[in-house]
Amino acid sequence: MSVRDWIDTKRTGGALKGDEIRAFVAGVTNGSIADAQAAALLMAVCIRGMTDEETAALTDAMLASGKRLDWSAFGFRTVDKHSTGGVGDKVSLVLAPAVAACGGRVPMISGRSLGHTGGTLDKLESIPGFRTDLSLARLQALTAEIGCAFGAATADIAPADRLLYALRDATGTVASIPLITASILSKKAAEGLSGLVLDVKVRSGAFLPARDDAHTLARSLVATSERLGMRAVALITDMSKPLGLTIGNALEVAESVAVLKGGGPRDVVAIVRALGGEMLKLAGCAPSAGHGAEAIGASLRDGSALDVFRRVVEAQGGDAGVVDGEAELPAARHREEIRAAHAGVVTHLDARALGIAATKLGAGREAATDRVAPGAGLVLKKSVGDYAERGDVLVEAHFDEPARFEGVRKLVAGAVVLGSEAPSLAEIVHERIGR
Amino acid sequence: MSVRDWIDTKRTGGALKGDEIRAFVAGVTNGSIADAQAAALLMAVCIRGMTDEETAALTDAMLASGKRLDWSAFGFRTVDKHSTGGVGDKVSLVLAPAVAACGGRVPMISGRSLGHTGGTLDKLESIPGFRTDLSLARLQALTAEIGCAFGAATADIAPADRLLYALRDATGTVASIPLITASILSKKAAEGLSGLVLDVKVRSGAFLPARDDAHTLARSLVATSERLGMRAVALITDMSKPLGLTIGNALEVAESVAVLKGGGPRDVVAIVRALGGEMLKLAGCAPSAGHGAEAIGASLRDGSALDVFRRVVEAQGGDAGVVDGEAELPAARHREEIRAAHAGVVTHLDARALGIAATKLGAGREAATDRVAPGAGLVLKKSVGDYAERGDVLVEAHFDEPARFEGVRKLVAGAVVLGSEAPSLAEIVHERIGR
Repeated sequence: MSVRDWIDTKRTGGALKGDEIRAFVAGVTNGSIADAQAAALLMAVCIRGMTDEETAALTDAMLASGKRLDWSAFGFRTVDKHSTGGVGDKVSLVLAPAVAACGGRVPMISGRSLGHTGGTLDKLESIPGFRTDLSLARLQALTAEIGCAFGAATADIAPADRLLYALRDATGTVASIPLITASILSKKAAEGLSGLVLDVKVRSGAFLPARDDAHTLARSLVATSERLGMRAVALITDMSKPLGLTIGNALEVAESVAVLKGGGPRDVVAIVRALGGEMLKLAGCAPSAGHGAEAIGASLRDGSALDVFRRVVEAQGGDAGVVDGEAELPAARHREEIRAAHAGVVTHLDARALGIAATKLGAGREAATDRVAPGAGLVLKKSVGDYAERGDVLVEAHFDEPARFEGVRKLVAGAVVLGSEAPSLAEIVHERIGR
Repeated sequence: MSVRDWIDTKRTGGALKGDEIRAFVAGVTNGSIADAQAAALLMAVCIRGMTDEETAALTDAMLASGKRLDWSAFGFRTVDKHSTGGVGDKVSLVLAPAVAACGGRVPMISGRSLGHTGGTLDKLESIPGFRTDLSLARLQALTAEIGCAFGAATADIAPADRLLYALRDATGTVASIPLITASILSKKAAEGLSGLVLDVKVRSGAFLPARDDAHTLARSLVATSERLGMRAVALITDMSKPLGLTIGNALEVAESVAVLKGGGPRDVVAIVRALGGEMLKLAGCAPSAGHGAEAIGASLRDGSALDVFRRVVEAQGGDAGVVDGEAELPAARHREEIRAAHAGVVTHLDARALGIAATKLGAGREAATDRVAPGAGLVLKKSVGDYAERGDVLVEAHFDEPARFEGVRKLVAGAVVLGSEAPSLAEIVHERIGR
């Protein structure tokens, strides 16, 4: 059997065997399978799909192309969270320290901003001195010592995923639930987790805005995790509007610190409690997700989560003064205000449009090689349900280069909808998938 | 719009516009589209299909990547036949001279043996001295002078087809009706034909053995030809058993000469009459296909088709003595006889198995770079419906190297089925598709 047979199997809608999938991933990794052949197979998978068994085998083979953290000598269970990406999603910065403060261990490997969505690494790196380029050994040591750490994917984590993703990106084969599942989980499984909580976003600002797609992805992620021996729960959460009131790296760090100090926007607190509760339950640190959520809330009020965050910042080379207001986060050189053209209640804040606007200002990347501007972004002065008089500031835009503001005023003005009736606020957690 | 958008369109089941298809073919031809991207798009086409309009646009773009013969100065209409390939299919060698003898003009560009099927060029080249590497100008001149000529595809005919076919072969995307259609017709359209008759084989020895597939391909070929301005008719013909009693290059030339002399196996004569009748009608040389078939039959009986064949052989450098028995065709060094294990009537001759056996003996190619042995092949001593005593010779195997006979006896013995009741003979033409 060779790659042409595997291609035929998928082209005609059949299922590949585990050893065929392993041989395919090995061939892509060692270069013995041509890009064109891999692309043909990936397209067939994209259109025909994969069974849960195939998806698990693919994930496992991608995981096996690299290293995996081994926690067997440590005597504790590790948990993590993965989000499908959103706008203003600073959850990880609060969640990992809060879970750690409650006894969980979180060796968090995160990503960077892409398209209209932000990235945890970019946010953390806006703290002066903060380094995310940890070796796996260092990530492991910090997690054991402090309870959590924030690393970037290293070259030895699922190298097959990097090769396959680059190929998918070039060949229009990104949009496939099994391929997305394998890409996410091969990297998370490399953390050697006992449990994984998945935050699958829906609506405007999400990677897959449609509810059905989000549901299918959540189900695939949970089923595949469980097949790989990682207990998993997915929460489908609302991304119709941005999370919190800031979009942009340093702006979101400041808002995260406010949440870690027991304040901050209610939606951020609510999602941290919900995700953290599930993580504590999977870690064996809480009898139920509800009890876990209570513990998370307490860790935000009593300063224990903030303490962990401060220690992580110090350990990863960052200036911990930013936590206590003794050091400044980077600020953008220019600000512009976008004001209400008429009076009304904010009925909608379009997450996707605001994410695109923040990216234009320099908070994100239009190309993977772009550098982010740490101080750039948007501050929402009115949230959904707030009343604005004509001329009130709705949004503040922060940016370094005036050219970046071009087109943003119009984009932002169109993203903030003012109406006459206060909207009913959507629950942030739409649905829970898992045992 | 770029290749990724076109890939998305096909991945999600949409239709590409004519200018998108032209840009894709241009990009593949000039190398600006990566193989992996082209492979992904081809796989999406394979699975999602193409509309008739898309198939015609693809064919036209592939045709436009190279040269096209222009007959406007010649004052006659050209016609040709394309067969999807069979076992013992020596039809072209008889058909082109017969049509020419009846007033048609046939600038025939043919292919070589592939897999278990034979190729017209290999057969003709078994005539000592015969050259098929004609320039397009020479093909055109010979067609005008003699009425027909036999050429190989030159580098300036549909170069996009060669690139796309090589990619499809490597990436498991050969089995697609629209892609097969475009590949066949882009080359035939380059002949500048007024009319094209398609011989689409069905059953065991055919490239697409299933009746539904053959029907779909025939319909696609006719519809696409007509959209390109070539009048077209397809005959779906029987390939459950080999055509005639010989399989192999020189062996089939000898049998073709016998038919051109008014003799030869009845099935070969029948299919030449049927296809030739349609060609003469499309060429405007006969009022109906039936009248055309009568004219073809007459040209075989009166020696006029043989005269044309003799002139073509001479003009293309071949030793015309083989036509009149004054020169020898190449013969294989060894012969083996396969005999009946018990008495019975031949109820079935498995075309595919016999084609594979002939290829093993050296008559065809297992890889595209193999050389064929001109004298090698099989001679069927009993046809379907013939009675054999135990020990009678059923098939004679011809080969140069003894190692080539290995496994052939068993393969051939299994391909000749002896039963107790004479089978009803299948009509050679199953169906006609076209106006």
